[in-house]
Amino acid sequence: MSYFENFIKANQAYIDRHGTAHLPIKPKTKVAIITCMDARLHVAPALGLDLGDAHILRNAGGRVTEDMIRSLVISEQLLGTHEIVVLHHTDCGMLTFKNEELADFVESKLHQNVHDQDFLPFSDLEASVCEDVNLLRDSPLIPDDIVISGAIYDVDSGHISAVEC
Amino acid sequence: MSYFENFIKANQAYIDRHGTAHLPIKPKTKVAIITCMDARLHVAPALGLDLGDAHILRNAGGRVTEDMIRSLVISEQLLGTHEIVVLHHTDCGMLTFKNEELADFVESKLHQNVHDQDFLPFSDLEASVCEDVNLLRDSPLIPDDIVISGAIYDVDSGHISAVEC
Repeated sequence: MSYFENFIKANQAYIDRHGTAHLPIKPKTKVAIITCMDARLHVAPALGLDLGDAHILRNAGGRVTEDMIRSLVISEQLLGTHEIVVLHHTDCGMLTFKNEELADFVESKLHQNVHDQDFLPFSDLEASVCEDVNLLRDSPLIPDDIVISGAIYDVDSGHISAVEC
Repeated sequence: MSYFENFIKANQAYIDRHGTAHLPIKPKTKVAIITCMDARLHVAPALGLDLGDAHILRNAGGRVTEDMIRSLVISEQLLGTHEIVVLHHTDCGMLTFKNEELADFVESKLHQNVHDQDFLPFSDLEASVCEDVNLLRDSPLIPDDIVISGAIYDVDSGHISAVEC
């Protein structure tokens, strides 16, 4: 028994609301948003996005990784975006552990040695936003004229505040 | 001038709708969804997700990469999820190029050699879903009792159909 079946049922109701429309593949606002996988952040309503407006990239923490750079190259070079927003959030799971603790736990549970893996936790929310903004600014694969902003989402209030980096 | 300022304005209206509520950090449905960054897919309404329901992981293509595995280890081992849905979609940008073409383009535009980079394009949508489902099934970092499903989202109709892998 999987929860997936419930998603399929819920999707039946969504189809009626969606209707049939072919939107362009290129995002209308030309923005790509990098944010966390956290369940308490629904990016589209929080930022006022309509269908077709913006690329949304999400991983644990909203961190700038090689996979995010891969995705941004496709977003920018093939699909025309020229702005990036890095959005981290309060009460993030990445604030709750250190690499060694998680590696020890994974070893005890899964019998895998991941002590060389950086899971990209952080201890300071504003600093983590600026670290990722600066990784983008320094990347040779992100053109210098791409506008890059940083921000923090408050999971309790829904409020987004800009971070100056 | 950045579009980011418009997001901040739209967020002002969202705050009123959000109200103040502290939801648990662990996703209620215990599901993590891996999908594409595509602007025409709003995951929460398409799957009937409420705030707090599920982790949402997104990159170019909804591909299973090292960064997605990193994120899933955190999702499962620290935050209690035990089901994964891999959701690709019709009219995906990943269907429109080959690695060498994109590498040539990036070299001409950014003067960077990325011919060693796999941008993870694909030519068959159902096959790409199953390739990623099977990467998860084979990963030693994803426990064998994690339920894994594959599906395709139709960007024109909003319809999600299951893929048997």
